[in-house]
Amino acid sequence: MLYVLDLIGVGVFAVSGALAAGRKRLDLLGVVVLALVTAVGGGTLRDVLLDRHPLFWLVDPAYLSVIVGAALGTVVVVRLHRPPRRSLLFADALGLALFSIAGARVAEAAGLATVPVVLLGTVTGVGGGAIRDVLSAEIPLVLRRGNLYASAAIVGVLTYHLLALGGLPSDGAALLGVATIAALRFAAITWGLSLPEFTVGDEDAR
Amino acid sequence: MLYVLDLIGVGVFAVSGALAAGRKRLDLLGVVVLALVTAVGGGTLRDVLLDRHPLFWLVDPAYLSVIVGAALGTVVVVRLHRPPRRSLLFADALGLALFSIAGARVAEAAGLATVPVVLLGTVTGVGGGAIRDVLSAEIPLVLRRGNLYASAAIVGVLTYHLLALGGLPSDGAALLGVATIAALRFAAITWGLSLPEFTVGDEDAR
Amino acid sequence: MLYVLDLIGVGVFAVSGALAAGRKRLDLLGVVVLALVTAVGGGTLRDVLLDRHPLFWLVDPAYLSVIVGAALGTVVVVRLHRPPRRSLLFADALGLALFSIAGARVAEAAGLATVPVVLLGTVTGVGGGAIRDVLSAEIPLVLRRGNLYASAAIVGVLTYHLLALGGLPSDGAALLGVATIAALRFAAITWGLSLPEFTVGDEDAR
Repeated sequence: MLYVLDLIGVGVFAVSGALAAGRKRLDLLGVVVLALVTAVGGGTLRDVLLDRHPLFWLVDPAYLSVIVGAALGTVVVVRLHRPPRRSLLFADALGLALFSIAGARVAEAAGLATVPVVLLGTVTGVGGGAIRDVLSAEIPLVLRRGNLYASAAIVGVLTYHLLALGGLPSDGAALLGVATIAALRFAAITWGLSLPEFTVGDEDAR
Repeated sequence: MLYVLDLIGVGVFAVSGALAAGRKRLDLLGVVVLALVTAVGGGTLRDVLLDRHPLFWLVDPAYLSVIVGAALGTVVVVRLHRPPRRSLLFADALGLALFSIAGARVAEAAGLATVPVVLLGTVTGVGGGAIRDVLSAEIPLVLRRGNLYASAAIVGVLTYHLLALGGLPSDGAALLGVATIAALRFAAITWGLSLPEFTVGDEDAR
Repeated sequence: MLYVLDLIGVGVFAVSGALAAGRKRLDLLGVVVLALVTAVGGGTLRDVLLDRHPLFWLVDPAYLSVIVGAALGTVVVVRLHRPPRRSLLFADALGLALFSIAGARVAEAAGLATVPVVLLGTVTGVGGGAIRDVLSAEIPLVLRRGNLYASAAIVGVLTYHLLALGGLPSDGAALLGVATIAALRFAAITWGLSLPEFTVGDEDAR
């Protein structure tokens, strides 16, 4: 089941990358490239940090097929219907939820303690989207105000990890973790929830 | 011959990094730093993704010598003559061609299948320039519209890989691959060729 | 002593990351995330390039505690007093000095030659700040004009490395190297020292 969730995560992040490419008016190959980088970025960062080789997308062709299919499918669907408002944000939220939990499970399998598990899960979840935003010359979603972004990932990964430690079957705990992250982000997007903001005055400007 | 092509690729990417630094009005050390990062970025990304250690520029001093020489040479030449228009783009195109093929050969030697070979070749070719552009706070060339950028790399790497699989001597196939990529990029720069563009309307704006 | 310097370096870079987050008006978790990335970025880049695993912050909980403490401490202190002008720049300068020398020592222990030692020390010193600036959508300090930034790191690392090769006890040489870098950066910030600038004319604009 981990594998299927992973493929779904890759697919929805590819959709978010393709939508971001459409907002920047890239050509068709730029769409596929940005979809690819978004979809494999978080998992690659996790595996490089953990020294897990060979990388999943280099040896399992299913990942690349799903990504290219999702990117081209997005182009076709957007040509037919205008995408719903905020579709990029919702695809991104689903990818964040799936990847954060997948990343946490890989970190658990590597024998890490709770805090590094939460951290690596979060890195896996936010990495691909952050690379997408940096390449598009935008401040990453994860850093933008009022998004409950990394916070959603951290709360969801902790939920999953503690439930699994507490004896819940791992797959069930994973689904609850995914649902927690997605629900928090959807709520944040829909109602504009946010954490308090931290401001340093202009006196500190360089 | 692979080694010589690699050094030439490193040199022309260093020139492109130095020219980019000049456009941002960096100081002399900034020029060398940006030249370095541009020149070793793609190959380093490739080697980290493939877990090939130690990294080439850490153990072979020839690379760093070529890079520093090319960067300082660029500064001197630009002081004497104004650079021809688009010199940055042409240096970048040559580096892209040389590095994409060099990356593909390394991926072949690692026993990867055709699609990952094409992908890693493209990553090697576009990586250094993308890092250069991100550090200069620009949208990477690879993502900009109307450039036939990643597309040129993909077509050229495929040409090389299929010719080599078909029995052509590897060095000959490599030269044809390099020529294909450089010719496509030069043509795209000169005549403004482009692939169709993909646009998502403002309704999707965050 | 290396370990204590490392923890101090992590702490001051976390402060600089938290201050950068305050300038971008991030929420509290964004502050912690940016502090984390700034604090572990340079060392992680160094360890991935050298293939040193497992990564220090994944296995030693002291690092994460220092970072989170420094980030939250910064938020509290800034609430109470306005930070002194340029506090971000000074925290960054101290982190640069401590990390460049720590990076050089790790590279020496890996048996590298002088030039790669200087290069990896510099990468370790500038890496975290560069990632902080890229994520904040700014041109990295290391590339900005008139900052003696990488230059300070290079001069200080060379000073340390040559003194240690010349027979000075390693800890003493390290302290002198750290002092050199910090002094050069503080002087550059206070009096606006700079190296000559390199400009390519508008004719080269893409």
